[in-house]
Amino acid sequence: MTEVYPRVALIGLGLIASSMFWAMKRRGVVGHVTGYARSAATRDTARRIGLCDTVCDSAAEAVEDADLVVLAVPVGVMGDVAAEIAPYLKPGCTVTDVGSVKKTVIEAVAPHLPEGVHFVPGHPLAGTEHSGPESGFASLFDNRWCLLVPVEGAAPEAVETLTTFWQALGANVELMDAEHHDLVLAVTSHTPHLIAYTMVGVADDLRRVTDSEVIKYSAAGFRDFTRIAASDPTMWRDVFLNNKEATLEILGRFTEELFALQRAIRTGDGDHLHAYFTRTRAIRRGIIEAGQDTDAPNFGRTRTER
Amino acid sequence: MTEVYPRVALIGLGLIASSMFWAMKRRGVVGHVTGYARSAATRDTARRIGLCDTVCDSAAEAVEDADLVVLAVPVGVMGDVAAEIAPYLKPGCTVTDVGSVKKTVIEAVAPHLPEGVHFVPGHPLAGTEHSGPESGFASLFDNRWCLLVPVEGAAPEAVETLTTFWQALGANVELMDAEHHDLVLAVTSHTPHLIAYTMVGVADDLRRVTDSEVIKYSAAGFRDFTRIAASDPTMWRDVFLNNKEATLEILGRFTEELFALQRAIRTGDGDHLHAYFTRTRAIRRGIIEAGQDTDAPNFGRTRTER
Ligand SMILES: NC(=O)c1ccc[n+]([C@@H]2O[C@H](COP(=O)([O-])OP(=O)(O)OC[C@H]3O[C@@H](n4cnc5c(N)ncnc54)[C@H](OP(=O)(O)O)[C@@H]3O)[C@@H](O)[C@H]2O)c1
Ligand SMILES: NC(=O)c1ccc[n+]([C@@H]2O[C@H](COP(=O)([O-])OP(=O)(O)OC[C@H]3O[C@@H](n4cnc5c(N)ncnc54)[C@H](OP(=O)(O)O)[C@@H]3O)[C@@H](O)[C@H]2O)c1
Repeated sequence: MTEVYPRVALIGLGLIASSMFWAMKRRGVVGHVTGYARSAATRDTARRIGLCDTVCDSAAEAVEDADLVVLAVPVGVMGDVAAEIAPYLKPGCTVTDVGSVKKTVIEAVAPHLPEGVHFVPGHPLAGTEHSGPESGFASLFDNRWCLLVPVEGAAPEAVETLTTFWQALGANVELMDAEHHDLVLAVTSHTPHLIAYTMVGVADDLRRVTDSEVIKYSAAGFRDFTRIAASDPTMWRDVFLNNKEATLEILGRFTEELFALQRAIRTGDGDHLHAYFTRTRAIRRGIIEAGQDTDAPNFGRTRTER
Repeated sequence: MTEVYPRVALIGLGLIASSMFWAMKRRGVVGHVTGYARSAATRDTARRIGLCDTVCDSAAEAVEDADLVVLAVPVGVMGDVAAEIAPYLKPGCTVTDVGSVKKTVIEAVAPHLPEGVHFVPGHPLAGTEHSGPESGFASLFDNRWCLLVPVEGAAPEAVETLTTFWQALGANVELMDAEHHDLVLAVTSHTPHLIAYTMVGVADDLRRVTDSEVIKYSAAGFRDFTRIAASDPTMWRDVFLNNKEATLEILGRFTEELFALQRAIRTGDGDHLHAYFTRTRAIRRGIIEAGQDTDAPNFGRTRTER
């Protein structure tokens, strides 16, 4: 495969960045990859396991000469990192990110970037409940979506090259605007995650009543909620704080519908329940027809196997 | 394997009953199996695919001479079915059920059963989102729990024999009292299902805004909610109407916690969110340690393969 970018810098060396590294190396998509993470512990781990061709001790050093800079840190620190690297960016390079929220990340990052640098925000829809430099694997993005959210005035060539890059990593790329991205993700990912966290919290409270039975019989439906609720607390805190508006909007609708169902249970309105449960089947059929269901239903999370 | 019951009658020929039939045949656990379902269509299908040794045209006929009678119909009709078969039950036989709720089923069934008949209610914690006579498969209960909920005065021998029977079908058997069963299941299964149904309903409402994107990007977390929400509407209507008290109790706690998280998002209280998301990880660890997690997280649902 021809090189898409001669030099790539990964800022943040967690699940997403490390998966990107192994996926780049699998296909020989790029030349040299530098990496940087905040803690010396993570940088040491990266060096030990061969994550990145060069692990740098500062973000500035990592981005120098890079043709593509990937911000792969929690959403809440994207702005700080952008400010830190801005003076060292090579003119004409592309900066992208992998944050799960797009509108606030763009607002935080864009003002720091010098003219002549192409900012093309992105979001690969792939993950696991694991995090850190050792959790990545090359196939994470295979046949998953990567959404690119070009900001106004983004150079079409920069968007095209980044598209080629993500395709080489295994992903299918789509373009979307930031606001719409945040609403769609609030429905398909953020609110489901918040709900799962909540249900697990309730079960945790109830452990005194039910002893270990909640765990013992968790396979009855609850277990997958706990898989989600094991995801990184910092990442999810930042997602909810940064996709506040859309998440609160969807949550509002959710509680409205939940209250209607709750009232139907309380008043014994079986017809309401039956009609509701029948209607929701249509969406399921749509997903099967769209080929979005697989044998391993797992909240879009892939198992860790490198 | 020695015969546990010479003659078994299955009333209702859906997912659970048909899986029980194939599991019984796999191990030669019983002698002769009769079956009955409400509709002629289901009875015809059963005859066509060889489900049951004899498919009867009335429940009365099916239970005559049976040593074990299994009520495998929706929770809401258990009482009616019990009343219908009661006059034809063989003295000394065991009647069990597989309903997902236990307290109201016992209240509905027990009064109809004549003296000398042993009533041992049960609930196998296994299922898929499919239903009907063609959805069953022999391995559904393998290594899954089956909870038995003996009513006061149940003959210990009857409970023991039923335990042996379920073990021969592949399940691990535990005894539990009805009220506790209904609370534990409200946490591990019923409330998670209601929440998933609700989230899918919200997404369905939003389809106008997001076009088909909710479906397209469903793998980001939402997809598994839709799997649940494809389950049989009648079964779930009956579950919620019959486990009203425990479900409303858990739902009440759920909305309380959800409101607290919602407020934290609205006010930007990142510490609250982070602390909550950290706490829920402990439950996940417990489940992994208890060996209740598998490679195919699937809401306790197994794929249909006979
Ligand atoms: N995980 C998913 O499912 C998923 C999916 C799609 C997108 N995303 C997005 O991808 C991004 C990264 O997620 P991840 O799962 O890869 O996270 P992760 O495994 O927790 O890794 C985060 C990395 O960021 C580094 N970091 C944190 N603060 C930093 C700072 N101020 N300066 C430099 N480095 C810093 C961390 O360094 P230390 O190790 O030294 O702390 C760590 O290497 C997030 O924006 C997330 O929203 C995640
Ligand atoms: N599915 C699960 O995940 C699961 C798990 C554990 C326990 N359970 C419990 O198991 C029971 C059966 O569930 P299932 O999934 O096997 O259901 P299912 O596949 O929908 O089958 C239900 C069967 O009951 C029959 N039936 C309905 N009303 C009847 C009546 N008045 N008289 C005689 N037969 C009647 C139906 O007959 P027709 O086909 O003619 O309509 C059908 O054969 C329910 O109580 C459920 O709560 C289900």
